[in-house]
Amino acid sequence: MSLTERIILVSNRGPVQYGRENGERTTNRGAGGLVTALSGLSSQLQDGVWVCAAMSDEDVVVARESPEGLCPPELGHDDLRVRLVALDPAAQDDFYTVIANPLLWFIQHHLYDLKTGPNITRREIEAFESGYAAVNRRFAEVVVEEVNKAGGDATVMLHDYHFYLLPAEVRRQCPDVVLHHFVHIPWPDPDAWRVLPPPMRDALFRGLLGNDVIGFHTEGYARNFLLGCQELLHLPVDLSAMEVVIDGRVVRARWYPISIDPEAFEAMAESPEVLDQERELAARRRDHLLLRVDRTDPSKNIVRGFMAYDLLLQDHPELAERITFLALLQPSRQDVPEYAAYVERIQTIVDDVNRKHGTGDWHPIELHLKDDLDLAVAAYKQFDVLMVNAMFDGMNLVAKESILVNRRDGVLALSENTGAHEELGAFAVTLHPFDIQQQADAIHEALTMPVEERRGRRDACVKVVQQNDVAKWLQMQLADISRAAAE
Amino acid sequence: MSLTERIILVSNRGPVQYGRENGERTTNRGAGGLVTALSGLSSQLQDGVWVCAAMSDEDVVVARESPEGLCPPELGHDDLRVRLVALDPAAQDDFYTVIANPLLWFIQHHLYDLKTGPNITRREIEAFESGYAAVNRRFAEVVVEEVNKAGGDATVMLHDYHFYLLPAEVRRQCPDVVLHHFVHIPWPDPDAWRVLPPPMRDALFRGLLGNDVIGFHTEGYARNFLLGCQELLHLPVDLSAMEVVIDGRVVRARWYPISIDPEAFEAMAESPEVLDQERELAARRRDHLLLRVDRTDPSKNIVRGFMAYDLLLQDHPELAERITFLALLQPSRQDVPEYAAYVERIQTIVDDVNRKHGTGDWHPIELHLKDDLDLAVAAYKQFDVLMVNAMFDGMNLVAKESILVNRRDGVLALSENTGAHEELGAFAVTLHPFDIQQQADAIHEALTMPVEERRGRRDACVKVVQQNDVAKWLQMQLADISRAAAE
Repeated sequence: MSLTERIILVSNRGPVQYGRENGERTTNRGAGGLVTALSGLSSQLQDGVWVCAAMSDEDVVVARESPEGLCPPELGHDDLRVRLVALDPAAQDDFYTVIANPLLWFIQHHLYDLKTGPNITRREIEAFESGYAAVNRRFAEVVVEEVNKAGGDATVMLHDYHFYLLPAEVRRQCPDVVLHHFVHIPWPDPDAWRVLPPPMRDALFRGLLGNDVIGFHTEGYARNFLLGCQELLHLPVDLSAMEVVIDGRVVRARWYPISIDPEAFEAMAESPEVLDQERELAARRRDHLLLRVDRTDPSKNIVRGFMAYDLLLQDHPELAERITFLALLQPSRQDVPEYAAYVERIQTIVDDVNRKHGTGDWHPIELHLKDDLDLAVAAYKQFDVLMVNAMFDGMNLVAKESILVNRRDGVLALSENTGAHEELGAFAVTLHPFDIQQQADAIHEALTMPVEERRGRRDACVKVVQQNDVAKWLQMQLADISRAAAE
Repeated sequence: MSLTERIILVSNRGPVQYGRENGERTTNRGAGGLVTALSGLSSQLQDGVWVCAAMSDEDVVVARESPEGLCPPELGHDDLRVRLVALDPAAQDDFYTVIANPLLWFIQHHLYDLKTGPNITRREIEAFESGYAAVNRRFAEVVVEEVNKAGGDATVMLHDYHFYLLPAEVRRQCPDVVLHHFVHIPWPDPDAWRVLPPPMRDALFRGLLGNDVIGFHTEGYARNFLLGCQELLHLPVDLSAMEVVIDGRVVRARWYPISIDPEAFEAMAESPEVLDQERELAARRRDHLLLRVDRTDPSKNIVRGFMAYDLLLQDHPELAERITFLALLQPSRQDVPEYAAYVERIQTIVDDVNRKHGTGDWHPIELHLKDDLDLAVAAYKQFDVLMVNAMFDGMNLVAKESILVNRRDGVLALSENTGAHEELGAFAVTLHPFDIQQQADAIHEALTMPVEERRGRRDACVKVVQQNDVAKWLQMQLADISRAAAE
């Protein structure tokens, strides 16, 4: 389907980032799963605009030069205008580094040690007002301007936890616009929000309730959102219809599991760079390759994964010198103390396990602390078992990407607390992320599974990934938008 | 009302504890809120039996000598048999120190730092089976024996988080008995239980669902329990009727806010020991007395309370030398590392605040790290503001006891995350436990409130405590038991 009215897309990170090299302006396609997922949308758009934050110095220059936005040829689509919003640097910093990360990210992934954090002080309250709320208001101004330009007839598609206050603000000024918001991270249950003072958490919920439709990865997250409306805001919710009523308006909670573009990913898996890396991996592989690919975010549960591997080697001495645990970890947010400490804990346990079990030239764990997409994709093709043991993870696209291109009848070992588990859990070996022993046992089960069973499970996973692709993710949302617009 | 059928009461800690001194057996009435609350039940019982664990060495001797139980004259009630259950020491230790505390206590109070704990290993899985489950089975045997002795017509009243597996076991063997369970700690929402592996958490929920009625302090906890049945066990729940159906049986979730015996507490507040302590307190009081009385459990949020006080003194220099924060803290579970570390953090921040703000003979905080009930009750009478800023607290009886006997139009500053807040929140100054600034501001508001308003609020609180007393707590439960028995 295609949409006739103007689509206004809003996300913090946009599809391009500008730079300057040797006096020349450079343009890079943005990284990150969101940009990849949304670029599929551009082909469905007629006369769309993508509103996003100016991040780099050159972005700010572009934002000043072209306040209405530009159509970057790099996107391969003439009609898609990218409108960069230049923000006050202090406000942008508070918005991102005090409120969105870590406060909202930590709450939505259950990452706080409540015995010691968070401590809401005047700093956080001011950062919420003059950072998060101010940035949301500035984006709302831009969105309203774009709605008015389209004669009031527009669909606004908002993305993620950076913009929970924006929908209500746009709704107030443009009551008839269709507002749709997709949340890319888990939505926890009501207690998790009780760490925020009521004025803050009420504002976030009420802001989000300005939408017509709020989308999540899973039915569980959608239900948690409605339960929060019930428990914290005392609004009437209907868990059968998955709706809540506020100010006489019906707001729908829906779920669309995000996915990948299987064809594009398969093509990337055959690139010369990946094939080079794959040959190298294959040359030095032992009987079993256990793989994990993650950002070093504590929510990914990397340390418990190594504890489970330690147990596995202890319980099964016959695996000695026959297995490698390849851990491709991309350092993340190292300016946040908890994240820096987490990398130290990872290095310590890797050293411990290698010292305890290693022999001769056998390193039981091979740790790579850097971002190397070609190596990751090569490893996707070569693993026997992929470990995804996240404590809480909105979706986890590594599971979908890797099983799709795997060439060895690899088995997914997948945490029950990932969004992906709703689709792929039936064909994976399920991991219980806080149970070290169970993880060790499950990895062993996956490693020793008969090849026919491995193949059957992988084939089933691949079918799911091919059917529930990113195009379907978009179509489901556009269908719900059409329904909302028709009412 | 009184009940004609046999009542079988089950709790871990019983109403008496035996000891040995100079070759003679001694009998002490048990301590703790549960024993106090339940002793009121004895007057309503005809031919009751209270089944509880043998704790002391002498308890074990008594259990062997009198396997059917004794009627200790100390309870002042001829008909109430106390049956001590001697347990295998290793099983009892695993039951209590590995599973009940800390695992269940931590989960139900959101005390885990999930980045580092819990780590479920073989140790925990075995402790669950050969400790927690074994103790529950042993208690179930005793209960079944007592049910059979009563000709099968009995009511079983179970208490707290030690016995979640017991109800289903009794139900299996005695399908027609009425089973009622009261949970004395918070019931968190479904995500909190996801840290337990599914076999464990399912067993706990299914065990508890052996009851006819499950009672909690608040409607919120009861709803959380039903939501857990829905989200984790996929059972059909009815949130209007507050019921869940399992194996064709209806299980009701109810709420009864626990309370105190106001007359008995008023009498204690006039004891010579309390009056002595009160005179001493009054002699050295300054303009304002801020008080807290707590066990040193991290859930009580003691450190953030001192951080808020630090801010208060900073924001309001006019309070210098005119206020004392009296902190009566009873050390708790010092064999658990997190608890020992918490006491160290308390001592550090008290020293810091006293060094930073103290002058001459003015110590802004007076910290007492011991258990002194007389001093606590004397302070209850003398405070101007009582701080209860718990992160999560099932009920908090300190709030009810202290406001009842206070003689100075004292104001409750009460966390929104305590059970007591459902009853007393409207007349208290509400504290948001993670918001340091708000706590400082709220304490200041309470300290400077006009006397008429303070008096009006206190009078309203006292009425609530007098009306919702412990007798009413029991009557509500007995009424629900009668209804369940009639069906």
